[in-house]
Amino acid sequence: MSSDRVKTGIKGLDEMLLGGLLPQTANLVEGPPGTCKSTLGMQFIYNGIRTYNEPGLIVTFEEFPQQYYRDAESFGWDFRQLEREGKLRVIMTSPEVSRADLESVGGTIETLAREMGARRILVDSVSHFDQITEDPVELRAVVYSFVNSLKREGMTSILTRESPVLLGADEAEDNTIGFVVDGYILLRYVEIESAIRKALLVLKLRGSDHAKDIRQYEITPQGIEIMSRFEGREGIMSGSPRRMADVFVEAFGKPLR
Amino acid sequence: MSSDRVKTGIKGLDEMLLGGLLPQTANLVEGPPGTCKSTLGMQFIYNGIRTYNEPGLIVTFEEFPQQYYRDAESFGWDFRQLEREGKLRVIMTSPEVSRADLESVGGTIETLAREMGARRILVDSVSHFDQITEDPVELRAVVYSFVNSLKREGMTSILTRESPVLLGADEAEDNTIGFVVDGYILLRYVEIESAIRKALLVLKLRGSDHAKDIRQYEITPQGIEIMSRFEGREGIMSGSPRRMADVFVEAFGKPLR
Amino acid sequence: MSSDRVKTGIKGLDEMLLGGLLPQTANLVEGPPGTCKSTLGMQFIYNGIRTYNEPGLIVTFEEFPQQYYRDAESFGWDFRQLEREGKLRVIMTSPEVSRADLESVGGTIETLAREMGARRILVDSVSHFDQITEDPVELRAVVYSFVNSLKREGMTSILTRESPVLLGADEAEDNTIGFVVDGYILLRYVEIESAIRKALLVLKLRGSDHAKDIRQYEITPQGIEIMSRFEGREGIMSGSPRRMADVFVEAFGKPLR
Amino acid sequence: MSSDRVKTGIKGLDEMLLGGLLPQTANLVEGPPGTCKSTLGMQFIYNGIRTYNEPGLIVTFEEFPQQYYRDAESFGWDFRQLEREGKLRVIMTSPEVSRADLESVGGTIETLAREMGARRILVDSVSHFDQITEDPVELRAVVYSFVNSLKREGMTSILTRESPVLLGADEAEDNTIGFVVDGYILLRYVEIESAIRKALLVLKLRGSDHAKDIRQYEITPQGIEIMSRFEGREGIMSGSPRRMADVFVEAFGKPLR
Amino acid sequence: MSSDRVKTGIKGLDEMLLGGLLPQTANLVEGPPGTCKSTLGMQFIYNGIRTYNEPGLIVTFEEFPQQYYRDAESFGWDFRQLEREGKLRVIMTSPEVSRADLESVGGTIETLAREMGARRILVDSVSHFDQITEDPVELRAVVYSFVNSLKREGMTSILTRESPVLLGADEAEDNTIGFVVDGYILLRYVEIESAIRKALLVLKLRGSDHAKDIRQYEITPQGIEIMSRFEGREGIMSGSPRRMADVFVEAFGKPLR
Amino acid sequence: MSSDRVKTGIKGLDEMLLGGLLPQTANLVEGPPGTCKSTLGMQFIYNGIRTYNEPGLIVTFEEFPQQYYRDAESFGWDFRQLEREGKLRVIMTSPEVSRADLESVGGTIETLAREMGARRILVDSVSHFDQITEDPVELRAVVYSFVNSLKREGMTSILTRESPVLLGADEAEDNTIGFVVDGYILLRYVEIESAIRKALLVLKLRGSDHAKDIRQYEITPQGIEIMSRFEGREGIMSGSPRRMADVFVEAFGKPLR
Repeated sequence: MSSDRVKTGIKGLDEMLLGGLLPQTANLVEGPPGTCKSTLGMQFIYNGIRTYNEPGLIVTFEEFPQQYYRDAESFGWDFRQLEREGKLRVIMTSPEVSRADLESVGGTIETLAREMGARRILVDSVSHFDQITEDPVELRAVVYSFVNSLKREGMTSILTRESPVLLGADEAEDNTIGFVVDGYILLRYVEIESAIRKALLVLKLRGSDHAKDIRQYEITPQGIEIMSRFEGREGIMSGSPRRMADVFVEAFGKPLR
Repeated sequence: MSSDRVKTGIKGLDEMLLGGLLPQTANLVEGPPGTCKSTLGMQFIYNGIRTYNEPGLIVTFEEFPQQYYRDAESFGWDFRQLEREGKLRVIMTSPEVSRADLESVGGTIETLAREMGARRILVDSVSHFDQITEDPVELRAVVYSFVNSLKREGMTSILTRESPVLLGADEAEDNTIGFVVDGYILLRYVEIESAIRKALLVLKLRGSDHAKDIRQYEITPQGIEIMSRFEGREGIMSGSPRRMADVFVEAFGKPLR
Repeated sequence: MSSDRVKTGIKGLDEMLLGGLLPQTANLVEGPPGTCKSTLGMQFIYNGIRTYNEPGLIVTFEEFPQQYYRDAESFGWDFRQLEREGKLRVIMTSPEVSRADLESVGGTIETLAREMGARRILVDSVSHFDQITEDPVELRAVVYSFVNSLKREGMTSILTRESPVLLGADEAEDNTIGFVVDGYILLRYVEIESAIRKALLVLKLRGSDHAKDIRQYEITPQGIEIMSRFEGREGIMSGSPRRMADVFVEAFGKPLR
Repeated sequence: MSSDRVKTGIKGLDEMLLGGLLPQTANLVEGPPGTCKSTLGMQFIYNGIRTYNEPGLIVTFEEFPQQYYRDAESFGWDFRQLEREGKLRVIMTSPEVSRADLESVGGTIETLAREMGARRILVDSVSHFDQITEDPVELRAVVYSFVNSLKREGMTSILTRESPVLLGADEAEDNTIGFVVDGYILLRYVEIESAIRKALLVLKLRGSDHAKDIRQYEITPQGIEIMSRFEGREGIMSGSPRRMADVFVEAFGKPLR
Repeated sequence: MSSDRVKTGIKGLDEMLLGGLLPQTANLVEGPPGTCKSTLGMQFIYNGIRTYNEPGLIVTFEEFPQQYYRDAESFGWDFRQLEREGKLRVIMTSPEVSRADLESVGGTIETLAREMGARRILVDSVSHFDQITEDPVELRAVVYSFVNSLKREGMTSILTRESPVLLGADEAEDNTIGFVVDGYILLRYVEIESAIRKALLVLKLRGSDHAKDIRQYEITPQGIEIMSRFEGREGIMSGSPRRMADVFVEAFGKPLR
Repeated sequence: MSSDRVKTGIKGLDEMLLGGLLPQTANLVEGPPGTCKSTLGMQFIYNGIRTYNEPGLIVTFEEFPQQYYRDAESFGWDFRQLEREGKLRVIMTSPEVSRADLESVGGTIETLAREMGARRILVDSVSHFDQITEDPVELRAVVYSFVNSLKREGMTSILTRESPVLLGADEAEDNTIGFVVDGYILLRYVEIESAIRKALLVLKLRGSDHAKDIRQYEITPQGIEIMSRFEGREGIMSGSPRRMADVFVEAFGKPLR
């Protein structure tokens, strides 16, 4: 079943996705600052090019391309070289322009994607779409249309999204993009034993089963690596989990025997 | 009593509904992204056609029909074939149009429903009605009127609704549609043992008793399947349940005997 | 003392009210969707007619009378027959009209109430008064005036009110009607042992003592029935109660003896 | 020290106040619907007249005097008789009028208070002052000025105030009146052992010490009666207290000895 | 190090401040109604005059000077006498006037402070500055400028501030004044063993260390007195602390030995 | 790897940063009043000059330079002397001016930075940027542009930011600056054993690994000092941690052996 999957090449993540993302789908990666959403996206693009020979695009609405070159370099990924090879393009634009661009026939992104044969795209971040309009109905239509343009071009996309809560449970906020995308990956901070760990959860993967467990992940010199699941904790996604009672019982019961 | 029920054909759900939905009623299915509200609705329509020989309509306000064909296909449901057989129609429209349509004599939905002899309808999703008006009083009147039009046409409807909270307790928000519908099914994420499970609860079924327990459900290659109830947990609907004290006591008490 | 009470005839509820509601009072019944506020009100009206020979009115601001006939029928209450006997009238109106009506001499409700000798009235629901004005001060005056008109006509009223929170603690919202009414009954969902139960609490009964405990209730084929109180739980009204420590202690202490 | 106190004559409350309220002070009594704020105020007025021979005024901004006569009657207090004796006046007015009245020389309240020699006044409720202005700064000035007028007339006042939260912790809301008054009594609902009790707390009593404990109170046929303090509970003022650990320990420790 | 401190003379507080406040600093005292912020400030002024021979000013934006005389009297502090001696002045003004006053050369406060040789000032309360402007940026500039004027005049100030939450955790609100001041003392209510205690915490003391523990305090006939710290409680500043597990363990462990 | 780090010289912090901050990066230090954000920044500047021979700038939007001289002095840091040596400049400006300044060629900050050879800059605080515009999109662009100007000038910056919540979990608020910066350090109050401690957490350090544990820190006569991590507590970042169950178990288990 996974033969037609778009592999992220991220250790542990493809297993959680039962092989990888689905082709021509839009996948949201959401988290607070420092959870390495962009790194995950860059790694998806880099592995696409180097391991699976699929050219990729990075669309940025804030950071200059130089920042991506630098960030990639710290993981040993030579983005400038990939650009020279015609396998990668980092495009800095605005949500308004990239939207108009994709809506018009033969716009920049479309032209580039076709010339390069781009199969993957990282959009960093869709939170910047908020600046197009304050009307939630119009915003949803814009995002939906943008996302579908990417699919129409045959690309599998990772869309990053900024989450405003550092630690603690999510609050009810406008989350329409979560309904529009095909895949939804949550990144969260979790406090455990007086330290902050990072947690990843695949919430949704339209058209496929996926791992349901909440996994730790770390940033290694080679990029993101998915670790084991959390054990013996309740309320992980609240950011401040409790030890589970059974762990307590197991430890406590012993001396009495 | 269940002889006149509109069976969903979803394993376990009809039992929870003591036979099925009630004929000519509107039934809300509410959940956050990835809880498979649309899948539940499509399965209701598919089973209606294939198992109970009741033609059905799908009204969508955002996704293109192609997306439904594709999603259905992943469960082995051939929606194109059903359309060719005249048993199914997937209609993409806007809330404004479908509302006007149903209010007028001989509108598209009415005409189609009569021609096809449609007995079931999936409206995906009523959250899009928010775009008609910002006035909650008017919105309620619109939804009420739309829902009654469906009943008047003799159809049993499933209305999906997007819930903005991913995990955690619901907050007080405008919930007037919950008062307007006849049936109300909640889908929620629940974190248990470091993984995310899905939970289903029948909150309301006007004119009938129903199961009160909170059940796990899973997405199988054949669609949604209702599993056993949760055991030994408190606060499931908060999304982050606690182990119950009696479980603790049972485990703890033993070594002392 | 209970000889002059207006009995609801609902099993267990009159006992909680130490005999019944007080004559010529306004009584609020508040709850989220599916807690059967309307059923409680209809049962109050039905029992009034059949058991206590007191004619009754039902004023509805949204549902058509047919819906009430149908809902009543599912409990074996023949509302059409009661209407034919001149003992019941189901009136569909708007808050604006019914307010003007009651304020004018010889309005519809007043005339009907007098002709029929109506002693009881169900107003379903006062939440619809929100559509009259957005000014909370004016709204309060309108509700106060409406409620007093009903009393002046000699009727004992049940006013239903929609609560927006499905599960979980109430939030601070405008609750002025709670101060205006004479009686205040809360209906709530409670999650216990992985299932959802319904809870009823009499919060206020001006001019009389009343039961203070929180009781379970169920919908039987004969209507609402009040069951036993909850046992061994803390935080019931939060919707997600905890097992109480003493229950724990009792269970735990035994093996050690 | 308590010789110059203004005794409420309410069983248990004067003890909590170390003798009673302080003369010529304004005292806030705040609670959700059904906690009998008005009853407490009427009892203060009634006992003032009958027990301490101090004439009293009741100023109401919503309820008709008849409602007070009726409510008082249910406790055996004959308010009509007291009015005939010239010891009591129940005045229905509006916040605007009573404010202007007190500000002008020889206004109604001032004249009445002097003619009757009124020493006590119940203002039911100051929440109605919200209708004068939406500007919190102006509102504070109005309330401050009104409260001082009452003191200037030599009266000790009880001011009732509506609290919007039924159960659960208070939220941050505009609470400037709490800073303006001399005394501040909180009434709250508390859920204990599956029932709802009422709790009273003296938060503030300018110029005097007072009991700090949270007491239960009940409505008896003779009016409000303060009962014992709560025992073995934590978080009472949250409305949903927990059993305290030491209670648990005491119970649990025994079988092991 | 404490030789140049401005001693409050309040029993236990100077120890917490490692000698007293720092000269020519602004110190915020924040708390809900009834926590005796003004008393703390008056005691600071009174002790300054009587014990340390430092004249003082009291600036009030709401209460009349008479109220301060009366409140002081209940602690045996004769403020009228101090005024006659030229050691104290209680000035009632408005935030606008006192601000303009301090900004102009030779304004009332400046003149008075110089004539009297005032070294201490109580501003009761800075919450009234909210009435100057609704623009938080302007408000911050006003408060900053006002606070610096006081320092420039060589005075050490206590600024009281009203906290809207009675019990329970603080919510995020505009707290810019907390960043502007040099010292920050929190007063809070804490529920312990079914009673309400008062807690004091020194959060900030620019340029000096200070006690970090949360202390109980009481109002005695001589004024505020700081008591021992709380023991064996978690979550004190939430207003509703829990008993700590180790206390539980200590008590529980014993019978087993 | 740490050879090219910009060392803060703060005991324990450089170890948490695996050597120090990264050159030419912007680093946010966020905390409530009294957590010594400015001290941390001043210490970074002071150590830069004295220990690492890197000249520094301090840009302040509210406090006068004199305040920094005084605050520094209390730690024995002679800022006036450093200014005389041309190694330090404390500039008081407004966000608008400093922004325009950095955007123009040869503005004050740019000129100063070049003349002095400034390598470090403290911006105290970026919360004042809120006064430039109420439009979050524009604000984000301004902050992003300002931050990049600092990097372009070759400086490593510490940006302080005010956090409105004293104790308790953060709420969802606008946190776009957290996404813009390269480093993100959180300062928080934590209540432990009836006292308030200070906690520091490195949340983000773009391009490098960092310590994940939550550490206590204290203000010593020499400045900030990072202490040991918290032990045996859950929920530290909520401000009100619980004792962990295993600690409980360890203590409790012993007497039974």
